[in-house]
Amino acid sequence: MPILTLDLPQGGYPIRIEAGALTRPEALRGAVEPGRRVAIITNTVVGPLYLAPVAAAFAAHDPLIITLPDGEAQKTLATIDAIVDQLLAARCDRRTMLVALGGGVVGDITGFAAAVYQRGVPFMQIPTTLLAQVDSSVGGKTGVNHARGKNMIGSFYQPISVTIDPDTLKTLPPRERAAGLAEVIKYGAIGDASFFDWLEAHMSRLVALDGDALAVAIERSCRAKAAVVMADEREAGVRALLNFGHTFGHAIEAGAGYGHWLHGEAVGVGMLMAADLSVRLGMLDASAQARLRALVVAAGLPSAAPPLAAGPFLELMAVDKKAEGGRTRFVLLQGLGRALVTAEVPPAALQATLAHFGIR
Amino acid sequence: MPILTLDLPQGGYPIRIEAGALTRPEALRGAVEPGRRVAIITNTVVGPLYLAPVAAAFAAHDPLIITLPDGEAQKTLATIDAIVDQLLAARCDRRTMLVALGGGVVGDITGFAAAVYQRGVPFMQIPTTLLAQVDSSVGGKTGVNHARGKNMIGSFYQPISVTIDPDTLKTLPPRERAAGLAEVIKYGAIGDASFFDWLEAHMSRLVALDGDALAVAIERSCRAKAAVVMADEREAGVRALLNFGHTFGHAIEAGAGYGHWLHGEAVGVGMLMAADLSVRLGMLDASAQARLRALVVAAGLPSAAPPLAAGPFLELMAVDKKAEGGRTRFVLLQGLGRALVTAEVPPAALQATLAHFGIR
Repeated sequence: MPILTLDLPQGGYPIRIEAGALTRPEALRGAVEPGRRVAIITNTVVGPLYLAPVAAAFAAHDPLIITLPDGEAQKTLATIDAIVDQLLAARCDRRTMLVALGGGVVGDITGFAAAVYQRGVPFMQIPTTLLAQVDSSVGGKTGVNHARGKNMIGSFYQPISVTIDPDTLKTLPPRERAAGLAEVIKYGAIGDASFFDWLEAHMSRLVALDGDALAVAIERSCRAKAAVVMADEREAGVRALLNFGHTFGHAIEAGAGYGHWLHGEAVGVGMLMAADLSVRLGMLDASAQARLRALVVAAGLPSAAPPLAAGPFLELMAVDKKAEGGRTRFVLLQGLGRALVTAEVPPAALQATLAHFGIR
Repeated sequence: MPILTLDLPQGGYPIRIEAGALTRPEALRGAVEPGRRVAIITNTVVGPLYLAPVAAAFAAHDPLIITLPDGEAQKTLATIDAIVDQLLAARCDRRTMLVALGGGVVGDITGFAAAVYQRGVPFMQIPTTLLAQVDSSVGGKTGVNHARGKNMIGSFYQPISVTIDPDTLKTLPPRERAAGLAEVIKYGAIGDASFFDWLEAHMSRLVALDGDALAVAIERSCRAKAAVVMADEREAGVRALLNFGHTFGHAIEAGAGYGHWLHGEAVGVGMLMAADLSVRLGMLDASAQARLRALVVAAGLPSAAPPLAAGPFLELMAVDKKAEGGRTRFVLLQGLGRALVTAEVPPAALQATLAHFGIR
């Protein structure tokens, strides 16, 4: 059972990766103090599968259960208001600990609710999707969407622990599995060529939800994420590399309407668009681009963009948080395992990439 | 021109107190970097008085102006959503700096918007009411209200600077002036007997808005606030003393409906209720209680509570953030200049205090 530690100036926290953790109350409870009230936030899909053991583990903490509808459309300030309403109605004071039980949407919402409830209460992540286990539960990015853009309202707010049970992936729908694999592929593509090689060799086992292969992929992904977050918690520098595929991806998600594309699906196509742009700018070999494309396809991810017009698509890219001083910043590849951030992209090259993906 | 510095582990910031600062562009701009976009948030009362010189000072920063309606009723998540909407529509990126120009409501809203916009942008406080100058602009408490309680959604998020121009108080309506004096009196009552003596001697000059007296009161109040915040930024201990009068006061504000009582007015009566309770518990001399009451009255503050029923009033006190483990915590006086926090209050004594103020 690997326990990674994410160390930050204001204090670190453990990331436990343990098959069967959800069946072990002491693993779930972690270091929660006696007498601390707990509020578990989950949704209508994950709750029926995993709420019972989690609620039982916190039985001595008078757990309040808050069940959200499923889906990205829940990531709004209205949901935060509704959570605060339930916490206040149940007399949850500022010693209350929130527990996020679910995927990335539940984690992002719960983390932001914890960041702002009574100016901040502690929270714990128990991610149950591959995407949340390898990416969104680690690193403290929390928030909700605004009609004009994804994750535009939020905080950097770290959990007190992350508990990952790979056994939960056995119930993961195929689309969610593929969406999580997009972020796994990303870690190889931006910073670890040997991990990329490993993924090419083991993708069929990952798609088959082989437990041993998943455990390796989760641990290597969490290590990569933790290393980047420790170096740059607030995305002043190197953390921006984690947005590989995300500037294009966010525009796909928003353009298609939140909820139609999963985040990871959009990132998958976004990585292919970023690689295409990298090739057009002479940074990346076509053979590396082909390997990335083959791996994305092998993961069961879409490789074609939705039918969107170039004008609105460019607008959505411009509003992305990585835009600074009015210029969109791109994460591009110089090779498999080597990424960089640049705003120096000729409009004609960008237009050619969009057109290649049907966005005109 | 005193410049105080509030030092915190993550970095300090200057609090400049300077008559005429609003007429000096360089004083207003402070250390804002060239090329940084600025968004000034003000309201319909303060904007017509002071927006012109502030907007002019930031003319090189393409200032976006966001003007809110006046009043506590604006402190909602809906206002945050509307501000984010305007920031995104104007293409404000995450290097944008927000400027709060107004009283405590504008400062609390702007600070929270800065805390959550794209996971955090810098902000500057230019407080224009006495209450904001001596209390709410210093210390990093930001947030909005929820229907179930005041300031229930927010962050600890520090400004990059606070610029106080006492000349702005010349236009302050009498109710706002009195509301600010409530917090000034509080600093004397909880921690500085000599400042309390000074206030007794100079209250008539403060009420007459004498510039020299106001400058002294503002500086001593800011020093007191900064000292407490530096010792306990997140209100784990001594900062709770600043809530003297606030547990009762928040219940008055909420019970009467936000906007009917000014925060400082409610705190004024709340301090008298806390003093009454302190006397009933044998902690405080009746003579000290009488001096506090006389000073509150001399400041032009109400000394009687609004007509509220005890049941709902106690409910509102219980939901206050200072409640922990289901018990309301009270800030009480042992003498003028000496306060303590306790949850050990017999219900009968509390009921007697409420009844004395007509709350049955």
